[in-house]
Amino acid sequence: MLSYKIDDDAELRLIEPRHAAELNALVTGNFEHIREWSGWLTERERPIERTQEWITQNLTRFANSESFTVGIWYKNALAGQIDFGNLNWRDRKMEIGYWLGASFQGQGLVTRSCRVLINHAFHELKLNRIYMHCAVENRKSRRIPEKLGFREEGILRETGWLHDHFVDEVIYGLLASEWPDESN
Amino acid sequence: MLSYKIDDDAELRLIEPRHAAELNALVTGNFEHIREWSGWLTERERPIERTQEWITQNLTRFANSESFTVGIWYKNALAGQIDFGNLNWRDRKMEIGYWLGASFQGQGLVTRSCRVLINHAFHELKLNRIYMHCAVENRKSRRIPEKLGFREEGILRETGWLHDHFVDEVIYGLLASEWPDESN
Amino acid sequence: MLSYKIDDDAELRLIEPRHAAELNALVTGNFEHIREWSGWLTERERPIERTQEWITQNLTRFANSESFTVGIWYKNALAGQIDFGNLNWRDRKMEIGYWLGASFQGQGLVTRSCRVLINHAFHELKLNRIYMHCAVENRKSRRIPEKLGFREEGILRETGWLHDHFVDEVIYGLLASEWPDESN
Amino acid sequence: MLSYKIDDDAELRLIEPRHAAELNALVTGNFEHIREWSGWLTERERPIERTQEWITQNLTRFANSESFTVGIWYKNALAGQIDFGNLNWRDRKMEIGYWLGASFQGQGLVTRSCRVLINHAFHELKLNRIYMHCAVENRKSRRIPEKLGFREEGILRETGWLHDHFVDEVIYGLLASEWPDESN
Amino acid sequence: MLSYKIDDDAELRLIEPRHAAELNALVTGNFEHIREWSGWLTERERPIERTQEWITQNLTRFANSESFTVGIWYKNALAGQIDFGNLNWRDRKMEIGYWLGASFQGQGLVTRSCRVLINHAFHELKLNRIYMHCAVENRKSRRIPEKLGFREEGILRETGWLHDHFVDEVIYGLLASEWPDESN
Amino acid sequence: MLSYKIDDDAELRLIEPRHAAELNALVTGNFEHIREWSGWLTERERPIERTQEWITQNLTRFANSESFTVGIWYKNALAGQIDFGNLNWRDRKMEIGYWLGASFQGQGLVTRSCRVLINHAFHELKLNRIYMHCAVENRKSRRIPEKLGFREEGILRETGWLHDHFVDEVIYGLLASEWPDESN
Repeated sequence: MLSYKIDDDAELRLIEPRHAAELNALVTGNFEHIREWSGWLTERERPIERTQEWITQNLTRFANSESFTVGIWYKNALAGQIDFGNLNWRDRKMEIGYWLGASFQGQGLVTRSCRVLINHAFHELKLNRIYMHCAVENRKSRRIPEKLGFREEGILRETGWLHDHFVDEVIYGLLASEWPDESN
Repeated sequence: MLSYKIDDDAELRLIEPRHAAELNALVTGNFEHIREWSGWLTERERPIERTQEWITQNLTRFANSESFTVGIWYKNALAGQIDFGNLNWRDRKMEIGYWLGASFQGQGLVTRSCRVLINHAFHELKLNRIYMHCAVENRKSRRIPEKLGFREEGILRETGWLHDHFVDEVIYGLLASEWPDESN
Repeated sequence: MLSYKIDDDAELRLIEPRHAAELNALVTGNFEHIREWSGWLTERERPIERTQEWITQNLTRFANSESFTVGIWYKNALAGQIDFGNLNWRDRKMEIGYWLGASFQGQGLVTRSCRVLINHAFHELKLNRIYMHCAVENRKSRRIPEKLGFREEGILRETGWLHDHFVDEVIYGLLASEWPDESN
Repeated sequence: MLSYKIDDDAELRLIEPRHAAELNALVTGNFEHIREWSGWLTERERPIERTQEWITQNLTRFANSESFTVGIWYKNALAGQIDFGNLNWRDRKMEIGYWLGASFQGQGLVTRSCRVLINHAFHELKLNRIYMHCAVENRKSRRIPEKLGFREEGILRETGWLHDHFVDEVIYGLLASEWPDESN
Repeated sequence: MLSYKIDDDAELRLIEPRHAAELNALVTGNFEHIREWSGWLTERERPIERTQEWITQNLTRFANSESFTVGIWYKNALAGQIDFGNLNWRDRKMEIGYWLGASFQGQGLVTRSCRVLINHAFHELKLNRIYMHCAVENRKSRRIPEKLGFREEGILRETGWLHDHFVDEVIYGLLASEWPDESN
Repeated sequence: MLSYKIDDDAELRLIEPRHAAELNALVTGNFEHIREWSGWLTERERPIERTQEWITQNLTRFANSESFTVGIWYKNALAGQIDFGNLNWRDRKMEIGYWLGASFQGQGLVTRSCRVLINHAFHELKLNRIYMHCAVENRKSRRIPEKLGFREEGILRETGWLHDHFVDEVIYGLLASEWPDESN
């Protein structure tokens, strides 16, 4: 019910346990697509109970101000997910991550959603830094932080295990001082 | 960030730990007003840590699909609170409760907010019954379920302790079948 | 060992984990009988580990002064169960519930047991109100609060899910001031 | 309410959180007397919250079949306490301990209470062995296991810290095969 | 990595979750040998997850200063285990236990390891008493406390269940004052 | 007792709750020195209970294979601390961090200790990557990863809050393939 409208078709909502079946269907239907760059995705099918549990754990971290996860809904169908993780209040920074179903790509959904969330992070949560890891070879994903104005800060060597090999990741950073003031 | 717009001035949002100071200020500033009909309110001031903890517990119950609490924001100021409690999935029912700061009264804020939440409960959560307790003497509060179409189902005698005496409470019930179909 | 003698044949005891097999046998043997008015009863057989766990959870709630459950033993056989639930210390009220094996009916076992427990609740625990829900159609069960002097306070519409339909429930209330003083 | 009658004046009951004030008063009023042989007793006064917590922990262990504690009530006043601790279900054994307020001594209250509990342990819980530790010098306490038929099995050297020195303790054991069959 | 060298071939290390497979293999390979005097050993094979969990629980008790368990490694192979359990800080005492794979016996590995641990317990942890239980008939095991200077303090009758019968156990005690001062 | 000897004077040991007083004294005595580059250090004195709790939490993470912390002891006095944190078993990587009391500097204690721990991480734990963050301006600390062969991988801008300003940090990485094979 609570949501953030991106445009007439797209909106962000918290993912709740009752969305588990919809989330499972999206992941299963996009298994190869998501798995290509996601080391955590190893099984095509997950029992719904495990997905509900994962959602509950996520919301519990939100309850403790440690992270939060929103779904992107497009024409009332779950299209993808954006995570704000590793919220560090002393250092006033957090990490952003995302994935999107294959059929929803090409419309800038993730970029526009990230813009909203970054706005929220800098203006509401008063964070100072947002960072992101992308596999060096994942050109498509890297375009998003680049379009959003993140700076490339380094390349972490062999920092992620992707199914059968280690990958290098670019780390991107964005500071509050670099973000245009558009607080509503 | 996630919200439900009631109108140009009013919106509903989840209450998060970072709202603790604003919530405390609202309660303290309306101490006599809220306390008049709220047995739980015994102290004018609460340490912010205790309020944060209470909010975290509330959100944890939300994470477990047991209840949820939203704040009513009016012109970007916290104005009051609506609770959906005692979510019972087997019986598909839940309880509603609310309070509003004195200076925000008279505009139908609670009634309009409840309408949105009830819509959500019947159409999204697929509940079958929503109920509410009001002290028999609390005429102002009773007008809200009455305007929303709840039916009076009985009077529970001496069912609540209000600071120094027991009060009788009307129980109101509303069924999905009685609610006009106005899904999203 | 600790018990309350109702008469020469019947006594109340706390249900402990070691009673799990006896409790399972009673429920299985009375499956249709109990199930007729109990929405929670869906499986004829339960693994003993799950029953032990349920008993342990019950006793843990007792340890926290939240509720308690006693068994009715008749001629040293477990005959039924009485629950004092939803202990609310601020409002000084609690809910009572019960069921009895079919072959033990007709002797007033539940009524006499409830009398003892109500006495305890009003005189030892200093509660002010005891309430009970009965399905409107469950004539047999409704005779118990009526014999005990509870007043009918209202009818909660479609408040319980009974296997395949919703049922209306009468709510009965009894106040300390209505209970004869027979503290021992 | 649930109890075991020792005689017309004395009975055993579970100690519940609501007995905390009575328990505190008994301990404070018998501080020197209990402390003489109890290393755990170091403070004359305890806040009631801490005693309630301790009782809740005790009952939680009871809920988990790990131990249980009963109070001895004499003419409706709490007189002392008997603990069945370290319940070991594989070895089918447990430890017994007790203390009694000074003014309640001399009537065999502890001995008679222990007899009831031992009966319960052997006949209901089907334990095989009950044991007890007494400081070698605590002649009065040692008379109890001796009257009950426990055998002295050894002397554990410097096994307990009693405020300012170590004490040797006799270990007493009693086997189910040594206990007369007087089940309920 | 952290270890205590007994000699050129033998050393003590904490058992960590990553040792679960090695520990399982040792227990399975010595099933009859260990089981002869260990009531806890009932299954020849254990799933590795359960062993990891057990190790984690053990280390958590170490984290809470309640007990600790070290493995004996001989020529870089896990050979056996020594437990310091029931750490009681008020009475400044603890219990010692051990077992060793059959092929590692005859070299005094356990005696030498215990000597090191006892030294640690008396000189670093400042304990006052160490005790040990051995089945009366387990002559081989009893030689260890005897060589280390423990005194026989009594015989606990039928105190342990060994698969199909109860066994009597000797209790051995050793005091700090009886231990030669060889603190490093 | 368990330790790793660096040389005749220095050794590594797990920090246990009983070391809390020694750890507090070291931190208090080196308050300005440690605080210069440690955002977490805000109070000169900490109650010993809080330090014990912190140690217990650390060891509990070790019990769960999530991290571990060792102390550096020099001539039997606690000199500093090395943390292996954020153990990530899927990506086979972990983070290293350290601090040393001022009077113990200049002898290569940290470098030699890290060498041992890195050896352990690559050869025993089979990790693939170890990384470290150093404030760009902390020249002294940066010499350690440089001497150990870590490569500079990037500069994370404003990534840490140091009392009153944000600092940039160099991220250093070291791969198993870059580490000489000197497994013992």
